Amino acid sequence: MRAVVPFASDRPKTRLEPVLEEAERAALARTMLGDVLDSLSTLDDERRGSADLDPVVLATAPVDCEVPVTVDDRSLTAAVNDHLPATDGDEPVAVVMADLALATPDALARLFEPDADVVVAPGRGGGTNALVVRDHRFRVDYHGASFRDHRAVADAVGADLGVVDSFRLGTDVDEPADLVEVVLHGRGETPAWLREAGFSLSTTDGRVEVVRNPG
Amino acid sequence: MRAVVPFASDRPKTRLEPVLEEAERAALARTMLGDVLDSLSTLDDERRGSADLDPVVLATAPVDCEVPVTVDDRSLTAAVNDHLPATDGDEPVAVVMADLALATPDALARLFEPDADVVVAPGRGGGTNALVVRDHRFRVDYHGASFRDHRAVADAVGADLGVVDSFRLGTDVDEPADLVEVVLHGRGETPAWLREAGFSLSTTDGRVEVVRNPG
Repeated sequence: MRAVVPFASDRPKTRLEPVLEEAERAALARTMLGDVLDSLSTLDDERRGSADLDPVVLATAPVDCEVPVTVDDRSLTAAVNDHLPATDGDEPVAVVMADLALATPDALARLFEPDADVVVAPGRGGGTNALVVRDHRFRVDYHGASFRDHRAVADAVGADLGVVDSFRLGTDVDEPADLVEVVLHGRGETPAWLREAGFSLSTTDGRVEVVRNPG
Repeated sequence: MRAVVPFASDRPKTRLEPVLEEAERAALARTMLGDVLDSLSTLDDERRGSADLDPVVLATAPVDCEVPVTVDDRSLTAAVNDHLPATDGDEPVAVVMADLALATPDALARLFEPDADVVVAPGRGGGTNALVVRDHRFRVDYHGASFRDHRAVADAVGADLGVVDSFRLGTDVDEPADLVEVVLHGRGETPAWLREAGFSLSTTDGRVEVVRNPG
């Protein structure tokens, strides 16, 4: 099965602007991509008997990477739809966002458990963080509340939908508050990168947030 | 197994003040509590063979309720610790927060799957949204980044820790942004209550939020 990992190489993670410079945001995004690819390849090893996974990065601009990269500067929706199964006999395709810094092999494995035509891992705020598409009639639309739209599209084409209930897959890293989750629950290089950059947890007044050491 | 559901009957859900009046916040909190109790009792029916669940509400002030209520106006930490197993022979205890408006019987059932001394469902922002405690040496501390503290406490007393990776159990309803999740993924009375109160999704400019109809 092909696993498509969309990655915004140009101007990544703009909503982290309050806490990270542009070059740092690019480095963080690249580190998260590495963690997602590592988890996908570990999963591949563990599950080789049942489903080979061939990760391919679908990037908006060239990126240096250990797996094949396809550059496509169109919208996320158009680019991903070009990679989904086009006819009845095509192989299923997984789509996993590059900013799922909490994704572990165990969490990703759950995507392949439901025996459904389309499997979705919803993200916070109505998003779709990961998908498995086995039905060639299904198409994505990432604009707006995409989870709701993908449920409607599956329904419209007569595909049954499986939903994966995962905190790890539901957490994409967009805003400073999301960094709390990475520091607390991340397992790959990303939490180490954040610590190196001076981030740590602060729990003054009972609220948990990350703060950045100016030194 | 006893299932303790802590509930703040006085001044509930203050962080929803920007979108709800005080009486409305109390009604919403009570509706969410009802949904959590319903899911726990459905789970009880489905799993009666393996583990009976006896829900008890642990409230800061009296509340009219279909299950037994214990009033305890001390801190959440002190009140919950009084209900945990005290000696080696005591029954395990589950602790499930009353504001888990996305909790379904299936999601709650996952709390009982890991064969661990302590099982935690982490909440967003470092919290602990649900627990199963089988080791009488374990005690809670809900202040600050409680997930990290509970991991440390389990480690300190030599209890092994299971972690449940659930978006539904990881979503507690504290802030206006959390209402998006209820409208999109809720299954009980709470999404209906919100719709009745005039809330709906808005996806202008690509961001998903709830808006309230002033009529």
